Parts: sequence; structure tokens; C-alpha cells
Amino acid sequence: MFDKLAVVGATGAVGTLILRLLQERKVPYKSMKFLASGRSAGKSIMFNGQSIVVDELKPEAFEGIQLVIASTPDDVARDFVPEAVQRGCVVVDESGYWRMNPTVPLVIPEVNAEEIRKHQGIISSPNCSTTQLVVALKPLHDYGKVKRVVVSTYQATSGAGLAGTRDLFNGTKAALANETYQMETFPYPIAFNCIPQIGSEKERGYTSEELKLLYETRKILGDDSILVCPTAVRVPVSNCHSESICVQTEKKISVEKAKELFASMPGVVIMDDLSKKEYPMPWNCHDKDEVYVGRIREDNSAENSLAFWCVSDNLRKGAATNAVQIAEWIQKNL
Amino acid sequence: MFDKLAVVGATGAVGTLILRLLQERKVPYKSMKFLASGRSAGKSIMFNGQSIVVDELKPEAFEGIQLVIASTPDDVARDFVPEAVQRGCVVVDESGYWRMNPTVPLVIPEVNAEEIRKHQGIISSPNCSTTQLVVALKPLHDYGKVKRVVVSTYQATSGAGLAGTRDLFNGTKAALANETYQMETFPYPIAFNCIPQIGSEKERGYTSEELKLLYETRKILGDDSILVCPTAVRVPVSNCHSESICVQTEKKISVEKAKELFASMPGVVIMDDLSKKEYPMPWNCHDKDEVYVGRIREDNSAENSLAFWCVSDNLRKGAATNAVQIAEWIQKNL
Repeated sequence: MFDKLAVVGATGAVGTLILRLLQERKVPYKSMKFLASGRSAGKSIMFNGQSIVVDELKPEAFEGIQLVIASTPDDVARDFVPEAVQRGCVVVDESGYWRMNPTVPLVIPEVNAEEIRKHQGIISSPNCSTTQLVVALKPLHDYGKVKRVVVSTYQATSGAGLAGTRDLFNGTKAALANETYQMETFPYPIAFNCIPQIGSEKERGYTSEELKLLYETRKILGDDSILVCPTAVRVPVSNCHSESICVQTEKKISVEKAKELFASMPGVVIMDDLSKKEYPMPWNCHDKDEVYVGRIREDNSAENSLAFWCVSDNLRKGAATNAVQIAEWIQKNL
Repeated sequence: MFDKLAVVGATGAVGTLILRLLQERKVPYKSMKFLASGRSAGKSIMFNGQSIVVDELKPEAFEGIQLVIASTPDDVARDFVPEAVQRGCVVVDESGYWRMNPTVPLVIPEVNAEEIRKHQGIISSPNCSTTQLVVALKPLHDYGKVKRVVVSTYQATSGAGLAGTRDLFNGTKAALANETYQMETFPYPIAFNCIPQIGSEKERGYTSEELKLLYETRKILGDDSILVCPTAVRVPVSNCHSESICVQTEKKISVEKAKELFASMPGVVIMDDLSKKEYPMPWNCHDKDEVYVGRIREDNSAENSLAFWCVSDNLRKGAATNAVQIAEWIQKNL
């Protein structure tokens, strides 16, 4: 069961990585189909030694498919996902479109895999910046109940897709050569700059990316009382999001206890020895599946408060890895 | 009075800018002397159309000088400042060495200029990341009393001097060409990376840079009850520090009121219209003397809490401009 697979958005930044992970992790399949927008349809992709032609993303393409992993823009997901579900597919969707729908489980397998059982055809994978935050918060929440989180992000350009990476590298080359460069994706140069806006303006002066850090966190942890003060910032890093996190809990968690809790959490790696300059950075967390935490210290500015630093590969655990893990769970358990 | 001037560290990143500002701002002087370490002594520098030879930094060099503006490493300041004071100089010191000494005023002219009157020969200029934070906090503190600040910094490489800038630009060129580059100053590559350590390890898992954000803030605002949770991070930006700030006050400050308070604060510029993508960034705040604030919004995760984003040129207001402003104040008022 669930071995007739399709990958939607197979040629994008996340899609490409999904294909790599399906091969590396030896995800079983009887048939494999790649779908993409008209622009990419017709291309051939090598997969497990076979050349597979990318089909155009059309409702009929889902006939006979059982399990879909999709990474597309929100408006694309809005349109094609119901078509796939109507044809009997279970869709693991990377887009933001379905995440907050009450009928759709929003899942990080290490955190709330059992939610997958409630699906009605769609399972959403969270936003990249939320995923690493929630993986790190989960053991603290289970032990001490998270009350309030202040999080400031340092987000990589790969989160804005292949065009984001081009804007960073080509924009940086141009800046170093004192030449101008026309941004494809970002509203301002990202080379040697920080842009304090990710996503569009939403309520109360917050951006869509920032509100995801609030609402998705609550949904995944199943606790609407959690308070979050989010600030999402794009930095000139090509891959891996970093987060400065300050978390207040109902029950006090000492630094030692926090390390014990992180150590017992699947998918979390502690990298924390300031005296040896050991801490996670995009530079040493790139191309890894785990969520890395370091700089764990007591925050003496509030009761029962901890501060720490968290880095994860936004294309892997923040996107492709999490989606493939959900697909694997479905294959094993449903 | 105070018109026999000397600049110590005249050839460094900040020193070079101090010379530029002395000329641009037409700071009056009868005599001007440049001092630097043995390495730089003997160099000639053009200043107001005159070529001035850099003298070696020795105690005797301060004979006959009245006002010194100095930007040197801490250990250099430890040694030479008392020698200058002993010879009758008033020293405006950029280094970290004297800042927390109870006999030394720590001054941002817009915030606490009157403290200068208490000097005993030394006036310290605060750390770059503290200065912009405190300039922004000051009007909020005066109106609503700041209780707690959570601040995460995005600090430019120019804060680590000329070698920091070389590490960024040469390291980035090497990274783009897939070549290796030996860092001069940073412990890890800074190109396309974030390093969550600035300064050395100090107490309770915090770095020296982070503790400056606590202790210097308290000293300048004259309020030891202010609580700060600081995280200081180096980002691949060449110039201008950015800060994500979340501040809780005793009295509620609405977003409208905060804008009114910021608008009335000398040295603060509001750049805040998310719908028009208006906010401060290193890219648009470079080479400006002001402290820029934007993304001002209510933080609904705590009572009486505001979140905002703050950018300032760390070499200017964070260092050279502030020191020159102190010197100007001394010339006018003492």
C-alpha cells in the first residue's frame, strides 16, 4: 500500500531534495511519477538509475496514484490538492495553504506523528522556521509547559526557492564587483544586508512568516495558550535558518535539565560548549537532517526562562526531510 | 579651551572615521596630533589639507594635549589612558576597558550628556550594540519605565575592525570561487554564515558582548533594575548592526505613543511602513549618524510589551560619531 508515488514540484529547490531523500532513504515504491508546472514538464530526471520524464501538473495525472509529496506555491496547492484527494490520493503538502485548515493534520513526525491518523486526504508539513522551533520546544513543553516564546530568526535565502539563492550569490558577486544586480525575488539587495520582512503584511503589523511561528506552533503542540513574539528576518546566508529563542515555562527548567531534555528528544542534537567555541551555525549544520541547539543558558531577565540558539537545514528538516518522514510514517502505519 | 587635540588609533576602522567626522563637522582645534601603535607610526595622513605624520603612542606624546579621542583595543586603553590623564588630558575612550569603572561616565550625548560633568579625566563611549539599543530605549524608558528587554543582534563585521571586513569580503570571494580562505579574526567562516558568539565567554554562559548589552544599558540609563536577555550574533553584513528588540514597560505604551516618543527623541529616525516595505536595513542606514527604528508593533505575548527593529551604523553612531559628539560637548560646555 501507498507505493504508487508522485512528487509534485519535483524540479524546485525542495522538490529536488525530496527526490534525493527518496533515493537515499530507500523509500519503497512500485511506481514513481514526477509532476511540475508546464514550464518544467517534459524534462527528464534520473531517479534510481532510471530516467523519468516530468509530467504536467493536471488533475488527471493523479489517477492511480496513492501517495503524493508536494512542494509548490500556496495557490498551486490550493488548486491541485483537492483534485488529487478526489482521486484517492493521500497528499503530504509542503505549502502553506492547507496548514491551518482544521481538517488537516499539521505534522512533525518526532512531535505529533499520531495526528496523521486523523487525515482526510491531506497532511501538511509546517513552515521551515516553525519546524525547527517546535522540535526544540517540544521536550521543554512536555516537561515544563511553554508559556511564552520570543523568537528572532536569521533565515537563509534558500527558503525563498532557487531564485532566492540566485539573488544571494549573483547579488553578492555584483556587490563585490561594484556592479548593479536586479533582484528576482527580494525587494532589496540581500548581499551584505538584512531584510526584516519575510512574507506579506498581515495583522497587527506582523508578517505572514511571523504569524506562522505563532499559529503553527500552537497547532502542532496542541496548545492555544502558548504565546509567541516572533520577528522574522532574512539574512545573507544561503542555507540553514538560525533562531535566537527565549522561552518561559510554567515549571522551572535548569540548563542541565534542558540539556537532558534536548538529549532525549529524537531529531535534536546539542552542540554547546562556548569555551570551545562549539555551537550550531549554518556553516556546520548544512545538509543535516537534525535540529541543532546550543548557547543554552538561563535567562535571568524573567522567571523560569531559558535562552538558546537553534539552527537547522531549512530545505531538509524544514521542508523535504519532514515531508519524506511523513510519507514514510504513512507507508509504515496506515 | 580643549582645542589641542589628539586622536589615538587614528589608522583603524573607527579612527579613520573619527578623522573624517572631525573634518566634516568642523570640530575646532588649535593643534591636532595622530597617535597609533608602532606599526602605523610614521604614516602620513591628509587632514584638512595638511599632511600629518602619525606619532607613536607613548606617554610623552600626550604632553600639551587637552582632549584625546581614542579608539584602541582594551589592553592598549588600559595602559595609555592613565598616562594621558596624568598629563592633564581629558580622554574620550572608545574601548571597553574603562566603561564600567564607577569613576568613569559612560555617555551617549542624546541620553545622558550631563554625566560628562562628573568626569575625572576619562569619559567612555559605549559599545556599538549598546549605543543604538539605549538611544531607542531612552524615550520609552522616560515615558513608561523599561522593565525587561529581550534583544537579539545581527552584527556587522566592521565591528571587528578592518580585519573583520577583510574576513567578510575576502572570505566571500573565496567561497564564491570554491576556494579556501584563512580567517584573520573570526573563529569560523563568516561568509554566508552566522556566528552566535561575539567576544569571549563570561559569566553564566553569556559572552562579553552580551553582558555589555546588560551592564552598559543599566549604567547609561541609570537604572540597575532593568533586566536584559541578550543574544549577540555576527552576520555576513559589512556595516551597520541590526537588533530585534522586545521591550516590556511598567506603563503601557501603544504603537502610536511609541512612534510619538521615538519621533521626539534626538538622533532617532522612524522608518516604519510595512505595507510599503519601509523599514531600516544595513543597506539603507549605512553611513548615517542616526539610530533607525521600524517594524514597531504591539507584542501580544506579554503585558505592556512592544517589539521593534533597530539599525544603526556601528562605526558612526556606534563608535566614531558618539565619541566626536562627546568631544564637541566638552568643547562647548566644560
